[in-house]
Parts: sequence; structure tokens; C-alpha cells
Amino acid sequence: MKIGVIGGGQLGRMLALAGTPLGMSFAFLDPAPDACSQALGEHLRGDYNDHEHLRRLADDVDLVTFEFESVPAETVAFLSQFVPVYPSAEALRIARDRWFEKSMFKDLGIPTPDFADIQSQADLDAAVAAIGLPAVLKTRTLGYDGKGQKVLRQAQDVVGAFAELGSVPCLLEGFVPFTGEVSLVAVRGRDGETRFYPLVHNRHDSGVLALSIASTDHPLQGLAEDYVGRVLKQLDYVGVLAFEFFEVDGGLKANEIAPRVHNSGHWTIEGAECSQFENHLRAVTGLPLGSTAKVGESAMLNFLGSVPAVEKVAAIADCHLHHYGKAFKVGRKVGHATLRSKDMATLKARIAEVEALINA
Amino acid sequence: MKIGVIGGGQLGRMLALAGTPLGMSFAFLDPAPDACSQALGEHLRGDYNDHEHLRRLADDVDLVTFEFESVPAETVAFLSQFVPVYPSAEALRIARDRWFEKSMFKDLGIPTPDFADIQSQADLDAAVAAIGLPAVLKTRTLGYDGKGQKVLRQAQDVVGAFAELGSVPCLLEGFVPFTGEVSLVAVRGRDGETRFYPLVHNRHDSGVLALSIASTDHPLQGLAEDYVGRVLKQLDYVGVLAFEFFEVDGGLKANEIAPRVHNSGHWTIEGAECSQFENHLRAVTGLPLGSTAKVGESAMLNFLGSVPAVEKVAAIADCHLHHYGKAFKVGRKVGHATLRSKDMATLKARIAEVEALINA
Repeated sequence: MKIGVIGGGQLGRMLALAGTPLGMSFAFLDPAPDACSQALGEHLRGDYNDHEHLRRLADDVDLVTFEFESVPAETVAFLSQFVPVYPSAEALRIARDRWFEKSMFKDLGIPTPDFADIQSQADLDAAVAAIGLPAVLKTRTLGYDGKGQKVLRQAQDVVGAFAELGSVPCLLEGFVPFTGEVSLVAVRGRDGETRFYPLVHNRHDSGVLALSIASTDHPLQGLAEDYVGRVLKQLDYVGVLAFEFFEVDGGLKANEIAPRVHNSGHWTIEGAECSQFENHLRAVTGLPLGSTAKVGESAMLNFLGSVPAVEKVAAIADCHLHHYGKAFKVGRKVGHATLRSKDMATLKARIAEVEALINA
Repeated sequence: MKIGVIGGGQLGRMLALAGTPLGMSFAFLDPAPDACSQALGEHLRGDYNDHEHLRRLADDVDLVTFEFESVPAETVAFLSQFVPVYPSAEALRIARDRWFEKSMFKDLGIPTPDFADIQSQADLDAAVAAIGLPAVLKTRTLGYDGKGQKVLRQAQDVVGAFAELGSVPCLLEGFVPFTGEVSLVAVRGRDGETRFYPLVHNRHDSGVLALSIASTDHPLQGLAEDYVGRVLKQLDYVGVLAFEFFEVDGGLKANEIAPRVHNSGHWTIEGAECSQFENHLRAVTGLPLGSTAKVGESAMLNFLGSVPAVEKVAAIADCHLHHYGKAFKVGRKVGHATLRSKDMATLKARIAEVEALINA
């Protein structure tokens, strides 16, 4: 079975590392000459709207999936003529646009911060009057890791903010005084079978995920599964989907979904019976899903900009290095460490050891 | 760090799957056009004594290691001029020749079946008179998985047996009435640090490993570590080494060593904190060694000739498929399953499920 992946970054790389032992092979479409997945499969170097490359990919593989959601809808539509594509064009259309996404949450009765569609500065001014400040202005599409957004704290921040984000369609979101950020990674098979990993506590630094800790018997697990299950069913979703929530007043408010394997699920490589990467591949290829149960207590720490010296990471007990083989660049996600410990106290001590390395 | 591997079969493939997340890349020298490691690195297609390819490999990588021990000594000597090679030429020289290997066991005080060097039929007749029957005649080099050997049960089996094995240097080994077969996989770093995985119970079918089960607190663990430690020190060994023993009268008799990652250590991918593949790479590259502790209860079953339907393997709980991507051929090792369960009773039930698939 040969899998085509749109995008050839670290998510594609980890998909291939999970799929190769299942007997799968991989081809990646990515315009970057140094796409880090290419060590693990064929690299088709081309733009995502390059029909010649898309046609070559479709002819060469059994199905196509994605490692990022900002794929042009037209790309998905074109590919779908020739080869099965999971998740569906509809799931991508919703997930890549914050307005569609938030509107779906509202339609499905999933609590989410107040929001408004912003097509102009006048729209923004009106929405700020209705929702109040502080609020966050985000581009409807193409935002990630805190990019394409601006926090509006006082009236003067609002002035010219629409132009500042490029005068593109935006979403204004009411600021939520959250006590924590959690995410639920879920997987749904072609037959509708659905499994959920344990809720993960996330810490973001400057808008970028820094630390994820898998929870045990989280009191909001059932509620989160209910909300995520509604979305999976609505989209007739196939594959892994990550859902980020704010913890507010002991409940959850939906932040956003990612229709793909997700950074907050990287701990599952060592920390779960079957990783998010293997489960995504099982789902899209129609295999039975694997167990999402935890193995020990797990956490994940991102390496941003550079990976610490490998001998230092390797010297930390319970620590598993995932080096993406990418060029180091300030702020870039270039690797992560998974920690898998016997108990939470040990895990916390290990987290401190990795953080000391990162901050050294 | 780029690693050159002599041989491009499943062991090379699993080395690369373990090393890629450490930021390593790989090149494999293998004459086979369909060498299954090539999905995970550069494939230099050439014979093991092809100086041009060896030189290209040496120039291209930081160090060289092996995935099989029958490498011509001259190949190792040639490579060693240009690039570090682990394990050493001396370790390979001993391990690839049953006479040198058994003589070393004897010199180190490690019990082993009676044995004799056989250079002619007359040598064989004399050795049979001294050691008795039953006995096993084995070629000194190039034997594996029961190939290159003949069991001699009665006098008539001895007649012409030397010629039958090709009139090449052989070893006669007294038959040992063993109650079980166990192996110890060990790893030794460049600095001499040594770690041992738990003893593994092995079941061979027709001379080929069928099933390995990792033990817990095996009463012979300490004795086995003592014996293996002597060999590692004697050879100033660097990397993973597997040592196969017969269990005899509550003690151990040495069967053979393999100076490489080993089939009876495949369970460590999911079943140990750090797999034999990662630990081999840590050892040869001078990184700190990883923990050899078990995670749950583990077993490994080989898939010989063909891999069962992937959807059936994936449907078994606790089961992890390792498909080597090789063409199916009667008797060929084409994959394995690792089982990792919470307790031994569950593990045994899962073993039965995989065996039912294999025998279906």
C-alpha cells in the first residue's frame, strides 16, 4: 500500500516512520527542496496546485492524506477525481477557515468564545462594540502557531488592525479568561469506529506549543469526547483529528480543530499503545484502529530553533528524542522529546531536566 | 551523523527506523536490487568486496556497522583504513567462525558442548569416536538459521557427511540434551559501559526462530550476564551482541554469539524502554546507552514465508506489526509481530491468537 502525503515536513516524516513497519510506502508532495520527509519516501517537489505533480502523485499511490490543513480546496477536488482522499475535502474546507469552523461549533451546540466574521475595518469596529475587549483578531485562513493574529487589548489596538493583518477575511474572537488549555486527539475509521486519546494539558509559549502532558481520568474527558464526537460525525471524518479547548469555569470552550495528526499528540509515539501516526494510517487505509490507552505517564517537549546536543538528550532517563532532520532556525519546530515515566512525580522531574537543557 | 551499514535487510531497516529520530541518516551496501532497507536510506548496490563501493561508502559516512556477521574479513580491514568500524574486525573474525567462537568460550571458562575442528572425513570419524553420537556437524562459517549443518544420530549418518557439507572446514559439536533455549542481548558502549536485556526464551522450528518471550527475574540472568560480560570484555566489543545458550541441568551451555542486533531482540522495539536497534546505534556513535528495562510483558513471533493479512494482525490487541517489505518466499523471514501485554496470562492468550493467524 502506497500513501501519498500532501506536505513533507515532520508530520509526514513521523507518519512514514509509523507506516513503514505496516508494510506501507510513501510519496510526499512538497515544494521545499529540503523537505524532511524525503529520507523516508519519494519526494515529489512541486507546488500544491501543480496539476502535473498532483496527477503523478495520484497515479502512483493508493490514497492521499495531508500533513497540514492549509491545502487549497481546489487541490483536494482535483486529487479526488483520481484517488481516495482522507480526510475529506469538506473536512478540510471547514477546518482551514476559522469562520466555518466556529460556525460549525455553534451549530453543534459546542461552547466557543463569542466570534464575528470580519470583512472590513467597519465590521471590526462593530464587532468590538458587540463582543468587547480584550479580543483576538485572526485571519480566517492560513494562521498557525500564533501567526496571523493580533491581540486587541484597548481601543487604540483596534485602529487599523484589519489592514495590519493584510485586509483579508478575519474572525474576531472574544478573549476567554481560561485556566488551562487542553486538547483531545481522536481517530475515526472509515466504518465510523471512533477512539479518543486521553486529554492532554498544553502549555504554549508565545503562541507555540511548548509542553504537553497526558492526563489520567481527567474530569472533562467525557465532555470533550462528546464535543469531538459531534464534529467527527458531522464531518463523516476519517483519520486523526485534534481538538483544542480552553478550560473555563470547570467546563470547555472550543478553540480550534486540526484535521490531521497534531503536535499535542506526539507523546503517543512512546506514550500510547498505538501512536496517533499509526492510528491515522490505520483509519485512512481501513484497518482496525489501535488502542489509544496510555503506557505509563507521558509528556512531550518541543525543541524550537535547535535540538540540544544529542548526547545530553540521550543521557536523560525515560527520554526519547525525535529529531526532525530540519535546518535549525529561530523559532522553528525542529524536534521534540517524549518522556515516558512510571509515575507523575518522576515525569515532572524528567520534564525539569529537559527544560533545563532547552534553557541552557 | 551518517551511518554506513553493511547489508540492507530487515536488520538494517530496523536500525534506520530507530536511528532516524535520533537525527541519523543511513547508507546501505547490499548487492540485492530489492534490499528492503533502501526505503530508509541510500542504497549502494555492490558486492561486499567491491573496493570502489566500499570506498564510496567510507567517504560518505561517519562510521560503519554491520547487520550480518558473514562479512569478509578483508572488507572490514579495507574499510577500517578510512572510517571507524564497529564492532571491530576482531569481533567479526571470532563470531563468524564457529571454531574461533567455541575456542574463545573455552578459554573464558564458559561451558559449551564438546566440540572439535573438522578438516577432513578422517577428522570427523576421530571426533565422533571421542565425542559420541548424537552430534551436530556444522560448517565453521556462513551457517545460519539451521543452514550449513547436519545432525548425526547414528553411525551411518557420519559416512560421507564431511563431503555432504561441501568439504569445507567444519565443527563437530556434541549434542546437548537441553531443556530450553535462551538468549541474552547485550550492548556495550565505546567507553565500556555494558547493559543487558532480560533473558529471552526462544522456540525454534526447523532451526529457525519462531517465538521469543522476554523473561522476568530469570534465575539464570546473573549467570548469563557473567558469561556474556566476559566475551564483551575479551573482544573490547562495541555495539549490540546476542548470545544464545542451551539450558542444561539448571545451568547454561554456550551455543553461539551474533555480533549484531538479533532476531531474539526484536521484541525490544515496543517491549523495552530503549530498543536493541537504538542501543546499538547509541553504542557505536558513542552516545549514552538507553535503559534495557522491560515495558510490560513481551513476546515476538516471526512471520516466515508470508505476512498474514495486515487487517487481521492489526485486529489483535497488544499486537505491533513489523512488515519488512520483502518479497514473500517459502521460509524467508518477512516480518514479525511484537506483543506487549499487561501480564503474562494476557500475553499467552495473544500469542495463541497470532499463532492461529500464522497457522490459518
